Amino acid sequence: MNKKIKVGMIGYGFMARTHSNAYCQVNHFFDVPLTPSLQMVCGLEKDKAEAFARRWGYASWTTDWRKVIEDDTIELVDICVPNNLHAEIALAAAKAGKAILCEKPLALNGAQALEMVQAVEKAKVANLVSFNYRRVPAVTLAKQFIDQGRLGRIFHYRANFLQDWTISADVPQGGDATWRLDAKAAGSGVTGDLLAHCIDAALWHNGPIQSVCAMTETFVKQRLHAETGKVEPVGIDDACTFLCRFQNGSLGNFESTRYARGHKALYTFEINGEHASIGWDLHDLHRLSYFDHRDESITRGWRSIHVTDGDMPYMGRWWVPGLQIGYEHSFIHQAADFLGNLAQGKPTSPTFREAMATQRVCDAVLASAKDGTWQTVAS
Amino acid sequence: MNKKIKVGMIGYGFMARTHSNAYCQVNHFFDVPLTPSLQMVCGLEKDKAEAFARRWGYASWTTDWRKVIEDDTIELVDICVPNNLHAEIALAAAKAGKAILCEKPLALNGAQALEMVQAVEKAKVANLVSFNYRRVPAVTLAKQFIDQGRLGRIFHYRANFLQDWTISADVPQGGDATWRLDAKAAGSGVTGDLLAHCIDAALWHNGPIQSVCAMTETFVKQRLHAETGKVEPVGIDDACTFLCRFQNGSLGNFESTRYARGHKALYTFEINGEHASIGWDLHDLHRLSYFDHRDESITRGWRSIHVTDGDMPYMGRWWVPGLQIGYEHSFIHQAADFLGNLAQGKPTSPTFREAMATQRVCDAVLASAKDGTWQTVAS
Amino acid sequence: MNKKIKVGMIGYGFMARTHSNAYCQVNHFFDVPLTPSLQMVCGLEKDKAEAFARRWGYASWTTDWRKVIEDDTIELVDICVPNNLHAEIALAAAKAGKAILCEKPLALNGAQALEMVQAVEKAKVANLVSFNYRRVPAVTLAKQFIDQGRLGRIFHYRANFLQDWTISADVPQGGDATWRLDAKAAGSGVTGDLLAHCIDAALWHNGPIQSVCAMTETFVKQRLHAETGKVEPVGIDDACTFLCRFQNGSLGNFESTRYARGHKALYTFEINGEHASIGWDLHDLHRLSYFDHRDESITRGWRSIHVTDGDMPYMGRWWVPGLQIGYEHSFIHQAADFLGNLAQGKPTSPTFREAMATQRVCDAVLASAKDGTWQTVAS
Amino acid sequence: MNKKIKVGMIGYGFMARTHSNAYCQVNHFFDVPLTPSLQMVCGLEKDKAEAFARRWGYASWTTDWRKVIEDDTIELVDICVPNNLHAEIALAAAKAGKAILCEKPLALNGAQALEMVQAVEKAKVANLVSFNYRRVPAVTLAKQFIDQGRLGRIFHYRANFLQDWTISADVPQGGDATWRLDAKAAGSGVTGDLLAHCIDAALWHNGPIQSVCAMTETFVKQRLHAETGKVEPVGIDDACTFLCRFQNGSLGNFESTRYARGHKALYTFEINGEHASIGWDLHDLHRLSYFDHRDESITRGWRSIHVTDGDMPYMGRWWVPGLQIGYEHSFIHQAADFLGNLAQGKPTSPTFREAMATQRVCDAVLASAKDGTWQTVAS
Repeated sequence: MNKKIKVGMIGYGFMARTHSNAYCQVNHFFDVPLTPSLQMVCGLEKDKAEAFARRWGYASWTTDWRKVIEDDTIELVDICVPNNLHAEIALAAAKAGKAILCEKPLALNGAQALEMVQAVEKAKVANLVSFNYRRVPAVTLAKQFIDQGRLGRIFHYRANFLQDWTISADVPQGGDATWRLDAKAAGSGVTGDLLAHCIDAALWHNGPIQSVCAMTETFVKQRLHAETGKVEPVGIDDACTFLCRFQNGSLGNFESTRYARGHKALYTFEINGEHASIGWDLHDLHRLSYFDHRDESITRGWRSIHVTDGDMPYMGRWWVPGLQIGYEHSFIHQAADFLGNLAQGKPTSPTFREAMATQRVCDAVLASAKDGTWQTVAS
Repeated sequence: MNKKIKVGMIGYGFMARTHSNAYCQVNHFFDVPLTPSLQMVCGLEKDKAEAFARRWGYASWTTDWRKVIEDDTIELVDICVPNNLHAEIALAAAKAGKAILCEKPLALNGAQALEMVQAVEKAKVANLVSFNYRRVPAVTLAKQFIDQGRLGRIFHYRANFLQDWTISADVPQGGDATWRLDAKAAGSGVTGDLLAHCIDAALWHNGPIQSVCAMTETFVKQRLHAETGKVEPVGIDDACTFLCRFQNGSLGNFESTRYARGHKALYTFEINGEHASIGWDLHDLHRLSYFDHRDESITRGWRSIHVTDGDMPYMGRWWVPGLQIGYEHSFIHQAADFLGNLAQGKPTSPTFREAMATQRVCDAVLASAKDGTWQTVAS
Repeated sequence: MNKKIKVGMIGYGFMARTHSNAYCQVNHFFDVPLTPSLQMVCGLEKDKAEAFARRWGYASWTTDWRKVIEDDTIELVDICVPNNLHAEIALAAAKAGKAILCEKPLALNGAQALEMVQAVEKAKVANLVSFNYRRVPAVTLAKQFIDQGRLGRIFHYRANFLQDWTISADVPQGGDATWRLDAKAAGSGVTGDLLAHCIDAALWHNGPIQSVCAMTETFVKQRLHAETGKVEPVGIDDACTFLCRFQNGSLGNFESTRYARGHKALYTFEINGEHASIGWDLHDLHRLSYFDHRDESITRGWRSIHVTDGDMPYMGRWWVPGLQIGYEHSFIHQAADFLGNLAQGKPTSPTFREAMATQRVCDAVLASAKDGTWQTVAS
Repeated sequence: MNKKIKVGMIGYGFMARTHSNAYCQVNHFFDVPLTPSLQMVCGLEKDKAEAFARRWGYASWTTDWRKVIEDDTIELVDICVPNNLHAEIALAAAKAGKAILCEKPLALNGAQALEMVQAVEKAKVANLVSFNYRRVPAVTLAKQFIDQGRLGRIFHYRANFLQDWTISADVPQGGDATWRLDAKAAGSGVTGDLLAHCIDAALWHNGPIQSVCAMTETFVKQRLHAETGKVEPVGIDDACTFLCRFQNGSLGNFESTRYARGHKALYTFEINGEHASIGWDLHDLHRLSYFDHRDESITRGWRSIHVTDGDMPYMGRWWVPGLQIGYEHSFIHQAADFLGNLAQGKPTSPTFREAMATQRVCDAVLASAKDGTWQTVAS
């Protein structure tokens, strides 16, 4: 029989659902030696916390996150609250010797991230940041192709994350549903929320970014604040585009916006190498585009790989070829990897330290946008 | 607190996984008044049954399906075994007064289906056949578009289900993994396995089929039988194509094969109406193609609807716009509808009676292929 | 300097434009030893014939097609008139010893086609039927792939030709613009007009068809006749679907309709072989879909080949990779091949004899639809 | 009968073919009151000039471009030579009072462009720069959608032009085929060759660009020079990416490279407005993507408009719906517009003055890439 691991969940919003689902599902599909036991969930409002606990099977609920830290039976703390709360909770959890899974972006900025890195490394606790898209099978397969040398020298890395849900000036900022538009809670706008995903994957796929040059814009300058009830200036970036140079000599082009009409959550990347290119798109996350110049010339073309076969990353655990999985599965894969590594005392990528590198790119991006100059990324 | 309903699962293969997963997930996402309690699973081999029970949380296991019927606490029997076993189990379950969810195709033929229909109707037990693709949100949305009259008079219904997994003559017939190639277990080949899905959706979308004309072929004439260890003639149809006429005057064209290289599980349909057309494809199940002739002429084009918004069928229960779900969700939706209706004493479509209509079309198709003549579908 | 060849064009409608354009363009792009000299055009109305001659550079015009035949300087007669006029003109042209390019379908039926075949073979005049889609580079490339054995044994050939321009009951039949809806002028509806293209390509790609089983429908039963001014019964097939068996053991599925809302001229085919599959679509005629099972498993996918490179059929004569050509180019390629072969005394495919095979499949299809039985194709 | 206009063509390379073809074809499809008469072609090598003249029907040929200017019967001079030769020829042609069609980019830089603008405006001669992609019907339709206000306020303009033909270090620079890699002949690399197209369309679609920030790279640092026979440093930009701000407040992101494996000539743009978005792709130039948020929510999706109908720009002159045109047609449309306007004494866009604006953006881009700073675009 599997060993149990008690989990404390901090947060009961959207991300808490994705993580809770992963804990419920992971052992149904993956053979990991640990079985999550959902011990406590914490959220601001008692009724909602209770309802969340009932739905997902948490044994208890609380409105004080310190209760989770203080519960000695809890071995794994999962942080699914707005970005400005990550640091304090993570520091406490590390001090209490708990493994930590923290939602992205890790922190509000690189300095805060460093503090968190130092805390988990000092406490020697397992730590992972939930850049879940790495574990979409097609994205993992892209990494495999790169590691196998299929692309050769990389020339270009291109990514964007386009949404359209904040175009209306009537969308408020702040509060449960729209804290992402409130600079105090979110730190930044699309940079930390969306580009952080693109940057994490880029660093993983293509190595360090050395320097960046960015432009940001806030199209709607003021919005009603859901908590204060007042119309307040908007402090986040609605759109951010940046150019960059990678250490390996390749060029990067990244863009994110919440003003791209028609795109709900269009995260795409394309990587152009000497021999081959790869493309991916979150709106059809089960497909990978691949072009291989070594194919015979009259048969060359972009291939649309339907990433559903048993020999593709993670897919041996699901259904049969042709039957696709969806968004939430990336979190199940994350849980499977984290629990599997935890059992063996091995780190799981991206650790807090790796996520700090993403944070530092974000910092450089925001600084560049402010100054209008190229910025070197801290390392 | 929700009322529990004890479930007995007969079978531990692929479909039993999809159904078990649905029972585990349904209450996490849907507000249905019943919570499945997994009571017993039955399968031929004890070790496998036990392992299945452990993985999915069944309280007990057995190798004798009659034990499931005899357990008075079990209210719902789920039949996930090869087609030739459906009837006997369903008749017993009906007699025992249990609700029944039966995998498709309902029976080996229309006569057997009729017997099953009469049994459940006599016993007045809830009954549902698992034509799961109806409950892929895009497929349900297609039905909604038709019911809203968006298409107007229908001229054409076209569907195919193309696979390529049996092209090699080395694939055996019979046994756990390949019983679908064994005529004794499966009844027919692609007709019952794949076309049944297409026919079920077509009857739902477009009404009764009056007459059919079919052609079948068995490309590989003999295969090793996994149970007997001998090379035996193949009795199933590897490919089946048929023309038909619907009662509403529209024409149908259906094709299925397991010899379409490059297609893993490409189930597609297209419906052409006077005003609008609809297309769908299982390989991108989260999208619906839609063309509306009433659009202004210079802006007319096929729309690719990303069926992930909260106002689309079932999608309000999942994530946010742009984030797709996958294959197994169709079974979760099925469970949600079935349990919801069960609690209210309402039937869930397709009932055994509705599935019998599909069976009768299959019978006519196979008879036509044998005789080379047009066949009227029994009604 | 190139030798000239005087051309007489019979017809000034849509097809006459495509052919005239080909004669004007062929020497700009292809190195063929003959240069067409446009000598005379013939059409029913003098003013239109004159305008056509002026636009395209014909030296003269006439309203009597016999004048074209009688002009001894004309070596090539091009027949671009409604189907019911092909035979008489072709017989006269053959007798006069002229090379003949005839629009498709060759004749109203197989018997008439045979008469035409005998006439050109007796007269030993060059003869070609304008099944232009064969010479779309992607379609020619498909043939090349098959001939290279890339597909291995063929299991399925699937084609359809879908349009939507006659859905409105207000479209008349007969007359210049809509003679295709008049059974007297066209012989049949979609069968001869559209399916003939699909059948021609299928015979070329996949060899003889042995037997067929078809269904036709006329959705709009009567239409105003543009010539008589009266509402008359519609004699053509609006839609036709047929199943067939090829001599090589593969199965065919063909469909055509003018009632598929959203499809302007969607001619598609897909060929499934043991090792590879091919797909093509007239709406993106510069692309070929290709799946090769011999690719390494994790990189397998349908390739979209952009057929614009210099080593692909005909494309070395056009622009540079990435820059597509269009519809009319298929006629320029046809002219290049015909003139090139003519200069060398070689036949060009499809000859009248080859086109007769297509006609005989059409005959069998129409007979089958009438009788509701399988029909053997005459050979 | 149409009035003739004598044309002198300077150049016999790739672009001279596209322009000559346009002069041959324009009157076959468009009713313009002028008919080009091909009077003289000029090129460096006599044999090639003669062969070009024969193929396209030029009455004479020369190796000295001044002969074209000196021929008083020539009314229209068409400049299809490398960029470094545009200015001198255009100045002479203007002085001689001839209408001028000049290939893009207009000049090597803004200062030179200004000189050319002043010359044509002083001489009051018709002048047009061949940014041909404006006249791809789908691109023109995009402009029409914007002018009709369908998009509302524009937030983003995104364009790229990706190729892969210079990845091999064995491709030489300089000479007939590869002068685009030689900084002396081309002025710049992808910026003037490819981005100029993107910028021209952007200024037309979305108004003036105020400031830019760019990054360029030369991946292969030295190449054999086809003229000198020596390995020489490469002076052009292999890749260029830039951010920009438009006067209307929208943000721009532009990228071009010749190192994007798998893309032959992938020019794409996407425009995101408040109400609607538009996308286009040169690899499928006959389609326009369109998303309209005002569609009913459950039917919203990106539409793929097959731009082949008679009510779409230019398409009423070609075939029937569903039948696509290709690359060279953009030049035919350009010729039709230019000749039509010429006959009426009206300017045709983009004039030299309009093309100068594009040149100034290119200048700012190259300056920014050199300095690493934001640059204001001269106006």
